[in-house]
Amino acid sequence: MQRRLFAAAIAVAAATGMMGEAAAQAKPETLVKQRQAAMTLQGKYHYGVLMATVRGRMPYDANRIAQSAAYLDVLTQLPWDGFDPSTADVKSGALPAIYKEPAKFKEAQTRLRSEVQKLVATTKSGDEAAVKAQIQAVDKACGGCHESFRERN
Amino acid sequence: MQRRLFAAAIAVAAATGMMGEAAAQAKPETLVKQRQAAMTLQGKYHYGVLMATVRGRMPYDANRIAQSAAYLDVLTQLPWDGFDPSTADVKSGALPAIYKEPAKFKEAQTRLRSEVQKLVATTKSGDEAAVKAQIQAVDKACGGCHESFRERN
Repeated sequence: MQRRLFAAAIAVAAATGMMGEAAAQAKPETLVKQRQAAMTLQGKYHYGVLMATVRGRMPYDANRIAQSAAYLDVLTQLPWDGFDPSTADVKSGALPAIYKEPAKFKEAQTRLRSEVQKLVATTKSGDEAAVKAQIQAVDKACGGCHESFRERN
Repeated sequence: MQRRLFAAAIAVAAATGMMGEAAAQAKPETLVKQRQAAMTLQGKYHYGVLMATVRGRMPYDANRIAQSAAYLDVLTQLPWDGFDPSTADVKSGALPAIYKEPAKFKEAQTRLRSEVQKLVATTKSGDEAAVKAQIQAVDKACGGCHESFRERN
């Protein structure tokens, strides 16, 4: 029985992941600031370049779009360890559902990562219509997560 | 003469680069928020992982260090188009020298990028002492730029 508990503890520690360990040492306020910084930078490229292009506010530039997609591929990895339970009481737009429904929150992260990775692949095809459709799929993944897990402005 | 002026204008437009075009459309306050977000995330990995390891506050973990170095390799590309002259009057820690000595500021960016790229290469060698020395070289590049271009706290 003790052995099983020990194994379970190891599994939890492994699932927490290497960045979880780093996050555990940071102050809750710092974690919130860092995860918000990651969201701000996602916005810089997603709204400022990708959606601006889809909406016709910026001319279609395949290189710029590929670069922004590559940045998003990294930036969408960065916010999640900042949603540590220790931050639940820090003022932010994060809803309690994040900590009450961690599996659903994780699923929303995985969906975003998957759509961004598809976008990176699509930018290599040179098919403008497919790229624009995939940018909108990324946008839907952003919005879907915000719908459930972020306060409405 | 007019022809030369036109050629010069084209050269300036080209030097501004593709991200400069995107930046030119954003509000100065937004540019400041985005560049500060990039600095915040550089701090998350540079101080929170790399320097924490060098200072012995975190056990040496080669995978975690390689991951943080890879993140920094992207994050150190992101702040610079936010230092647009349009932001000079927005309250921040940025010193006027950024706009008065653009070549020196650019040189400091290039130095940081070069040290981070060396760090990424070094993390692949598996040589702990070399990795720690290169983390300190990155730290020196951060500090060197802050010394000349950021207000003292």
